[in-house]
Amino acid sequence: MLDRSEFEAARERLAEHLPATPLATSDGVLLKLESLQPTGAFKVRPALNSLLAHLDQAREKGVVTSSSGNFAQAVAWAATRLGVDSQIVMQRAASEFKRGRTRRFGGTVVPCDNTMEARAETTERIVDQTGRLLVHPYDSDETVAGDATVGLELLDQVEGDFAVVVPISGGGLIGGIAAAVKEKRPGCRVIGVQPEANPSMRVSLAEGAQTVVEARPSVADALVVTRPGARGFEVARNYVDEVVLVSDEEMVDAVRRLAIESKIVAEAGGAASVAAVGAGKVRAGGLPVVCIVSGGNVEPAKLAGWLGDERAS
Amino acid sequence: MLDRSEFEAARERLAEHLPATPLATSDGVLLKLESLQPTGAFKVRPALNSLLAHLDQAREKGVVTSSSGNFAQAVAWAATRLGVDSQIVMQRAASEFKRGRTRRFGGTVVPCDNTMEARAETTERIVDQTGRLLVHPYDSDETVAGDATVGLELLDQVEGDFAVVVPISGGGLIGGIAAAVKEKRPGCRVIGVQPEANPSMRVSLAEGAQTVVEARPSVADALVVTRPGARGFEVARNYVDEVVLVSDEEMVDAVRRLAIESKIVAEAGGAASVAAVGAGKVRAGGLPVVCIVSGGNVEPAKLAGWLGDERAS
Repeated sequence: MLDRSEFEAARERLAEHLPATPLATSDGVLLKLESLQPTGAFKVRPALNSLLAHLDQAREKGVVTSSSGNFAQAVAWAATRLGVDSQIVMQRAASEFKRGRTRRFGGTVVPCDNTMEARAETTERIVDQTGRLLVHPYDSDETVAGDATVGLELLDQVEGDFAVVVPISGGGLIGGIAAAVKEKRPGCRVIGVQPEANPSMRVSLAEGAQTVVEARPSVADALVVTRPGARGFEVARNYVDEVVLVSDEEMVDAVRRLAIESKIVAEAGGAASVAAVGAGKVRAGGLPVVCIVSGGNVEPAKLAGWLGDERAS
Repeated sequence: MLDRSEFEAARERLAEHLPATPLATSDGVLLKLESLQPTGAFKVRPALNSLLAHLDQAREKGVVTSSSGNFAQAVAWAATRLGVDSQIVMQRAASEFKRGRTRRFGGTVVPCDNTMEARAETTERIVDQTGRLLVHPYDSDETVAGDATVGLELLDQVEGDFAVVVPISGGGLIGGIAAAVKEKRPGCRVIGVQPEANPSMRVSLAEGAQTVVEARPSVADALVVTRPGARGFEVARNYVDEVVLVSDEEMVDAVRRLAIESKIVAEAGGAASVAAVGAGKVRAGGLPVVCIVSGGNVEPAKLAGWLGDERAS
């Protein structure tokens, strides 16, 4: 289903824009720091790859996407870098923190009503009226190939088989990583992590089909897709060893420990991998463990509150 | 005065213990993330090198040092890793946060009265009575050679000439970096940064001799040495282009921006380099700028307070 030659093409496209993110070590676990990307999350990879794959159209017509979070910032940043005009459709309820960052990276925020339908409608209308390039946050070939570059880097950075632990929202990131890694090193394990409040991929795998779940709110405001994308689901079905769930408390604890012990700022969803390992939920089969720290865009006041709960010891 | 062949020897000694720390990019400035070292600061380099250079004595007799901060944790960590017993002399006034971390890394904290004299006396007594290896935090050949490995890594990681901005306390770190870098690339610039509250190296350079200053307290609790070490001073006199001063406010602002924009936890002293650049105080002469983020051991409650002051925008 996925064309793996596209993964290497994506890597070549991204090479001049994004150096490989570093691996840090903490408590014997390797941390792949996507939080150190220019916009603070791995999403610059799929955003850049989507634009670079259709650069003529993007430059002529501009680009549009809908997202309330990390993909919004990533598209704004990538578009500005490539001389492309970007419009980002965001619900009026999206936090001013996220809207502010999207604007700061050069995107034009187009507000819409607070439903997924309104967001989709507004985006479609813009595409129809302007011919802008539409880029998808987690379920297009370009997106998954951009995400797969995380896996290609890991194959260079870690010797031998490893177990990689990946936060899941729409499934693009784990799909790209699993497809890239298992192809070359079938002995690797790929473990997905979702919030207990939104187990969309876990439920879909159990059902054997993409399934919509009723999600509750959680601290992981980046892990909100309630039905996995087709591509992520297909790869997960074939290549993901298991999907485990973490609680809000476990994620907050991971954010706190990453900041205090590892000197890394992560957002709750971005730290879901570390939370799963910290809670003893990951069966690595004796392999070295790599946690993808997928993003760091936590609101300062929220992080301050979580850190303030810590008693110095 | 410094034997540069020792720098390469230090690098070989450290190679199996510490991978090169990564360079991140933020706002066009390169950040050398010593905060990602195992104890959260560059001090593991001089601690390990001092122990490895005298490993037989250290293993037989143990090691002792006096420090209230990052060097204490580093010696405890390095000693534990090498199977060496460590005693760390700390003033009773040292924060429980730092004592707790030192113990957690395997060090035995030996409390003493709250004066520099008491600390020196206690340490000396232990050396006399036990024959323990005494390691110095900033002014020994082994320390400066350990510190110099930061410079050697930069020569590998950055192509061509660059300007490197380095926080100064006793002068070991800037001494090692300047000696390593200027030897190989005399076109590089080396800029030191001190708190306005403790301009010991700046005053010493102006006086032409190691000078004791009356320091005031500052947020940079890692930059407290009031008279530069002989080695650091000698190198600085020959190789450091200038030393600039930063205010508490500028350092706190840098800590805040590093956490929010760059997803990096730094302590105030460790962010002094970023503060100097942010305040427009660094003359880089058109060269790419590398800020050494020398440490990340900020107390959680303090960081929470600083982040809480930030208005989301």
